[in-house]
Amino acid sequence: MSATPLLLKPARLVAGAGDFDQRLDQLLAWESVSDKAVQQTVAEIIDRVRHDGDVAVVDFTRSFDRVTADTMAELELSEQRMAEALKAISDAEFDALQCAADRIRRYHEQQQQSSWQYEENDGTVLGQKVTPLDRVGIYVPGGRAAYPSSVLMNAIPARVAGVSEIVMVVPTPDGVVNEMVLAAAAIAGVDRVFTIGGAQAVAALALGTESISKVDKIVGPGNIYVATAKRMVYGQVGIDMIAGPSEILVISDGGTDPDWIAMDLFSQAEHDEDAQAILIATDGEWLGQVEASMNRLLPEMERRDIIAASINNRGALIQVPDLNAAVALCNRIAPEHLELSVADPDMLLPSIRHAGAIFMGRYTAEALGDYCAGPNHVLPTSGTARFSSPLGVYDFQKRSSLIRFSAGGASDMGKVASVLARGESLTAHARSAEYRIKD
Amino acid sequence: MSATPLLLKPARLVAGAGDFDQRLDQLLAWESVSDKAVQQTVAEIIDRVRHDGDVAVVDFTRSFDRVTADTMAELELSEQRMAEALKAISDAEFDALQCAADRIRRYHEQQQQSSWQYEENDGTVLGQKVTPLDRVGIYVPGGRAAYPSSVLMNAIPARVAGVSEIVMVVPTPDGVVNEMVLAAAAIAGVDRVFTIGGAQAVAALALGTESISKVDKIVGPGNIYVATAKRMVYGQVGIDMIAGPSEILVISDGGTDPDWIAMDLFSQAEHDEDAQAILIATDGEWLGQVEASMNRLLPEMERRDIIAASINNRGALIQVPDLNAAVALCNRIAPEHLELSVADPDMLLPSIRHAGAIFMGRYTAEALGDYCAGPNHVLPTSGTARFSSPLGVYDFQKRSSLIRFSAGGASDMGKVASVLARGESLTAHARSAEYRIKD
Repeated sequence: MSATPLLLKPARLVAGAGDFDQRLDQLLAWESVSDKAVQQTVAEIIDRVRHDGDVAVVDFTRSFDRVTADTMAELELSEQRMAEALKAISDAEFDALQCAADRIRRYHEQQQQSSWQYEENDGTVLGQKVTPLDRVGIYVPGGRAAYPSSVLMNAIPARVAGVSEIVMVVPTPDGVVNEMVLAAAAIAGVDRVFTIGGAQAVAALALGTESISKVDKIVGPGNIYVATAKRMVYGQVGIDMIAGPSEILVISDGGTDPDWIAMDLFSQAEHDEDAQAILIATDGEWLGQVEASMNRLLPEMERRDIIAASINNRGALIQVPDLNAAVALCNRIAPEHLELSVADPDMLLPSIRHAGAIFMGRYTAEALGDYCAGPNHVLPTSGTARFSSPLGVYDFQKRSSLIRFSAGGASDMGKVASVLARGESLTAHARSAEYRIKD
Repeated sequence: MSATPLLLKPARLVAGAGDFDQRLDQLLAWESVSDKAVQQTVAEIIDRVRHDGDVAVVDFTRSFDRVTADTMAELELSEQRMAEALKAISDAEFDALQCAADRIRRYHEQQQQSSWQYEENDGTVLGQKVTPLDRVGIYVPGGRAAYPSSVLMNAIPARVAGVSEIVMVVPTPDGVVNEMVLAAAAIAGVDRVFTIGGAQAVAALALGTESISKVDKIVGPGNIYVATAKRMVYGQVGIDMIAGPSEILVISDGGTDPDWIAMDLFSQAEHDEDAQAILIATDGEWLGQVEASMNRLLPEMERRDIIAASINNRGALIQVPDLNAAVALCNRIAPEHLELSVADPDMLLPSIRHAGAIFMGRYTAEALGDYCAGPNHVLPTSGTARFSSPLGVYDFQKRSSLIRFSAGGASDMGKVASVLARGESLTAHARSAEYRIKD
């Protein structure tokens, strides 16, 4: 904690001012650091796990996490240990986890995809078959950033999708176990839990070892070593998006209690110093009130140093002439979280094209979405909402195209394929199609 | 063309033999080469395009493609030029492209996703909003591997998804234009066409220049420079999967004409020397007949050198005890293309978990799917069908979560979120939720 009082000075911007576009671009700029040394280390860890399997994973875990296990079996948690976690947490915590899990499950069940097919006049059948992934690995950070909510958000969509086996890895540095994380895993229906982490855990999931069957996809957040390892094994397994720092954009008509908005901004800023909280409003005086609230509330916050760094480096209060201008800015920023703290959010919704999750109305604090609203809290960051989606059931299923030509259909289409294949000088393609043409 | 007669010697494997698993793994092994020199070159090209925009793109295009243009305007094709392409191709070619486009469009329209929402008892509304991407770039290789079918397969799903602007880039080395490619672009409804290619075209699409607005996603195949550039700009824009060599797995009950199967295998093998064609059957004698057909047909093939290299390096004929064993192998291989050349493909379908596209019955040659069946020919390769899907409308749309809490819902859920947030030591989250609790 800092000795001198912290002062929050978010950037104050006015849309349309001469330097506005440039200042906004600077504010939004974000480059993740790609460190050669980290890449080298991770490549070596993956190689060792590839060659030595369990032995390598146990060695790395002893060394990095300072635990005493001699075998992988000692690093797997038993069903009994998982059941104990459910008893170790308070009743209020158990009920809250259970309530959140139920709501997350109900929401994600709406994302179920169905196989379909249709038949053409000549009897040809075309379709699409949806199949869940066989086996999924979930990475859960240990130590300081151990979030039970992440366990629910990653495991439940996989379960709803029909994934047969969910394997969770969570490091326990110095043997410290987070009971809430284990309880969340039990509630979400995780099948196996290993207390391993880092690049060695990612490698074990991607390549398989004697004790860990290789998975088809790895999801979940992690530090730079985990993120680098996920990038490196991508292609052999699927991965979720590599997340940048978390962000919120609040659009307000100035009718919400400034304290509420200040705390909504703080709830993003407290994640880490690179997190970004931006407020857009039509009323400059009200923006000043929010800034005053922020400074009044800051001393009460446990994570005030992180909040101050985030707000002062990357935060902003932006004044716009009207709410349409606010929506236009939103579509430019494509925020991870968008709060529409306005009287009539439905009026703005149709114009919003790019946002990971949209929180509508003054009561819908973003924090509710982090835990128990139902929708996923794993969302596209750094403007990637322009082209990507929240984590969902669709990330744990994939599609296969179905084609069944009737004899007549194959004959008709054989003629078409023949012309096009010869146009591309692919004559084996042409002849394969031509064999099916009836004379 | 080779001077000495080519002999096809695909690997002959028997499932269950002592060394079978090892030999199959060797056969399937594929590593894409990551060349440091290529990465360095591509990084420099991207940097120059970032700094010099149009000027850099024109310079690179003059130098790499040996064209004389002085400005980007000269590298954009006019609507009139596109219309001319439609007249330059034969009537048969025009009709074939039009027929293929219609069928591709009809199939992909089935993939449309809808927004949805539901209301809870307390008035809280949860939902998911589907929005198309704003702008998409399609890379089309020039020269030898210029495939009009790829233009249809990439552009039509984007159009069906509702993408506002589709920008195509296609290099024209030495100024050579492929009229079929341009005609396909006109038929698919591509909005703008630039005759540029390589890493400089990918950089221009991802970063934008004075003449080219930056896109949200880049799709389409390309050489190692293009693939490397796509990997490097990933995150700033979306990309499709980086494809490995094309593959086919044919499963047969031995009742299909051996010549048909031989040609189906050839149609994969003729793509390139790394392409993989595997045939699995229960009947060893019939496998021998197919091998004989292959050797008899090979001399007639225009691309026989490529076919021979592909079949002899990576091809295989595998004998299995029954069709269930064949399906088990399929699920292990997770092929890009699967042909079920059997009497009753519907019997096998429910057990097939992993394949990009499934071609059912003796009439359904894989080549039909490459051109005009309707489903996409951009499919997951190298076993990635375990966790990924054919290119589709869903790749050109993304989802936003919708959350609108009623006052009562926010109060109830505020209590739950508070417990969980405090369990994670995120007290600003907790307080933001607690503000919404009614006393």
